[in-house]
Amino acid sequence: MRAVDIIIKKRDGLVLSRAEIEFFVQGYAAGRIPDYQASAWAMAVLLKGMDEQETTDLTLAIAGSGEVLDLSGVVDLAVDKHSTGGVGDKTTLVVEPVVAACGLPVGKMSGRGLGFSGGTLDKMESIPGFRTNLSTDEFLDHLRRIGVVLTGQTADLAPADGKLYALRDVTGTVPSMPLIASSVMSKKIAGGAQAILLDVKIGLGAFMDTVAEGRLLAERMVAIGRLSDRCVIALLSDMNQPLGIAVGNALEVKEAIDTLHGGGPADFHEHCLEVAARLLLLGKTAVSLEDGRRQALAVLEDGRAWDKFRTLVAAQAGDVAYIDDPSRLPSAPIVEEVPAQRSGWLAQVHARIIGETAVELGAGRASKEDPIDHGVGILVHHKVGELVEAGQTLFTIYARSQPEASSARLRLEQSLAWSTEPVPPLPLFYGIVE
Amino acid sequence: MRAVDIIIKKRDGLVLSRAEIEFFVQGYAAGRIPDYQASAWAMAVLLKGMDEQETTDLTLAIAGSGEVLDLSGVVDLAVDKHSTGGVGDKTTLVVEPVVAACGLPVGKMSGRGLGFSGGTLDKMESIPGFRTNLSTDEFLDHLRRIGVVLTGQTADLAPADGKLYALRDVTGTVPSMPLIASSVMSKKIAGGAQAILLDVKIGLGAFMDTVAEGRLLAERMVAIGRLSDRCVIALLSDMNQPLGIAVGNALEVKEAIDTLHGGGPADFHEHCLEVAARLLLLGKTAVSLEDGRRQALAVLEDGRAWDKFRTLVAAQAGDVAYIDDPSRLPSAPIVEEVPAQRSGWLAQVHARIIGETAVELGAGRASKEDPIDHGVGILVHHKVGELVEAGQTLFTIYARSQPEASSARLRLEQSLAWSTEPVPPLPLFYGIVE
Repeated sequence: MRAVDIIIKKRDGLVLSRAEIEFFVQGYAAGRIPDYQASAWAMAVLLKGMDEQETTDLTLAIAGSGEVLDLSGVVDLAVDKHSTGGVGDKTTLVVEPVVAACGLPVGKMSGRGLGFSGGTLDKMESIPGFRTNLSTDEFLDHLRRIGVVLTGQTADLAPADGKLYALRDVTGTVPSMPLIASSVMSKKIAGGAQAILLDVKIGLGAFMDTVAEGRLLAERMVAIGRLSDRCVIALLSDMNQPLGIAVGNALEVKEAIDTLHGGGPADFHEHCLEVAARLLLLGKTAVSLEDGRRQALAVLEDGRAWDKFRTLVAAQAGDVAYIDDPSRLPSAPIVEEVPAQRSGWLAQVHARIIGETAVELGAGRASKEDPIDHGVGILVHHKVGELVEAGQTLFTIYARSQPEASSARLRLEQSLAWSTEPVPPLPLFYGIVE
Repeated sequence: MRAVDIIIKKRDGLVLSRAEIEFFVQGYAAGRIPDYQASAWAMAVLLKGMDEQETTDLTLAIAGSGEVLDLSGVVDLAVDKHSTGGVGDKTTLVVEPVVAACGLPVGKMSGRGLGFSGGTLDKMESIPGFRTNLSTDEFLDHLRRIGVVLTGQTADLAPADGKLYALRDVTGTVPSMPLIASSVMSKKIAGGAQAILLDVKIGLGAFMDTVAEGRLLAERMVAIGRLSDRCVIALLSDMNQPLGIAVGNALEVKEAIDTLHGGGPADFHEHCLEVAARLLLLGKTAVSLEDGRRQALAVLEDGRAWDKFRTLVAAQAGDVAYIDDPSRLPSAPIVEEVPAQRSGWLAQVHARIIGETAVELGAGRASKEDPIDHGVGILVHHKVGELVEAGQTLFTIYARSQPEASSARLRLEQSLAWSTEPVPPLPLFYGIVE
């Protein structure tokens, strides 16, 4: 078998066999197949596509490029949750303690933010001391003892994915349905998940612009689950405007803490309840969606979800004094409110512009090596469909300097569109694929 | 400007600007743009295409990646000839001395054979001592003094082409019309040509299978000429069966010598006359095609073409004793005739199979470093459309060993298709694009 023949086959629109896909992925991971062949192949995949079986074979080959965790001795049913990434998406910080508090253990390996989309690990590192580099043994030990873990992916988990993603990033081969789907699913499968809830974000602040695109991606990932004997469901959720109010690392941790205490913004609270209920049902801890919602609501209201979060933070060496008193979390020196210059209904609160503005303030990275400022960010006080009066606060900017705050203000004002007529609110969800 | 954005633009089917193409080619030639970006870009070009202006910009950028010869002080009008490659195509060995003998100086930088297609330099190196590594100064000096040169491309001529071709060869990105057209044309333009005759081979033993494909390639190269102020015409010629009788290096030199003495196989003789006449017209040495044919025929018949070939060989340190007595040229120890087992009309004499068999005998290279055996090869005694009686000789095999001869015989027998009904002969030419 020769790599060039596999490239040619895909270039000509033919279907690759499992053996060919394994040969290519294993060869690339081992360095026998060079980057220049992998990038030509990725471009051919992007332009010619892959069917469900090919995408599944690719997913399993990538998962099998490193260690594949076996959680069967640790939990009854290994569940996992993955968001395709958005602005203000701190769902994991709430949902994980909630479902663990309901008795469904969940160990999650998360990623860092890149581009305008925030990363769960970056958010958790707002808490001084919090470790995101647990070993596999620590991961398994925490999962067994306290039923909740939130750490980074170990280097040996699906190493072909990391290598391929870095290559795709510089060769124009990121936006390919089979490559995105296999990247997401390979990491979940390598992490030992048997049941997976996918939160597919759709809209201006997501990688998928339209519901049709998001649904295609969701369907593809659910098909991978079916063909690889994993139970997978996908929620299609809105990411035209930020989720919740807070965008920025410590700000989002504070919002998650509010929500774990039973409060938090209404949209975020509802989003977390829905995701938690689906996860409980998937993990067979709830008998119905209604039962799942009831259980989740109960642990949020009686403090068990909060306790579980506190246990998680303490177990991973985070200083709980900072979450017990969130005002101690990092905060930027300049805090500036942006009032509305006019009245009207909000027709657009552009998630991507807000996400990019947060990155410019220092909340995210332009490249992988950039440091993060955990204290900066933006509070977004209004949602699409709300009637705002002139003078009401639209945004609160947390910046390192006045010039940065002023620059952010100019961009944020461009993120809004106004209407003189009432505008319907955006839905939280567009549907579910299962 | 970023390489990845240029890749993305082409991936999305958009037209690249001259500045973008120059940035990419210069960056790649200089090593600033890595192979893995160039291969993804090449795949996008293959699958999305390039228009005539893009292909011209690419051609000029590749030509400009190294030295560009200026022949204006050396010849009145710099003409060149290029064949896209075929089996038994020793046209240059005859046509170049013919047109030079008619008073049109022609300096040609040729290539080596790769795959089933033979290379002019390999053929000439059958003549002991013949140098194919002239310096640029020697090239210009010979062209000025004797009006005829036949040497290898210097390393600094269109270096981006060599680098890109090697990459395309291992990334499944060879069969792309704009990449093939720009590769051919960039070398001709870097070599200083102002008028170019292209011999586009079409058929089973060519890179272009069909007349439609060959015509597209020809049209694209003629368009590059128009957009870059070079005069370009393209002949579409048959390569379903080998050209002439001889396939293999010394065998082809002998056939070229026969032809230069006014003999040679009828199809090859006619092919050379047509190409020479077109070249003389292009170089303004003939006033019409008929005048060109008349001049070419005259120098073949009165010995001036042969004298010019002898002068060429001597000037490049070849031992003329070997061409004065071609029986001294390298010849393989085993010579085996293959008689027809049946009678019938030949419906196919598969050029590619014959070319591949010659390579297996040692006449060509499987990879760039392989040595060549100048003495081996095949004589193909019959053409499509001929009536062959059982017992007549179909092939003469020149091999290094009996097992190699037997193996070749088996393959050669598969190259033929027979008919019990008369079959029309194949045309020499399918048309001309100008």
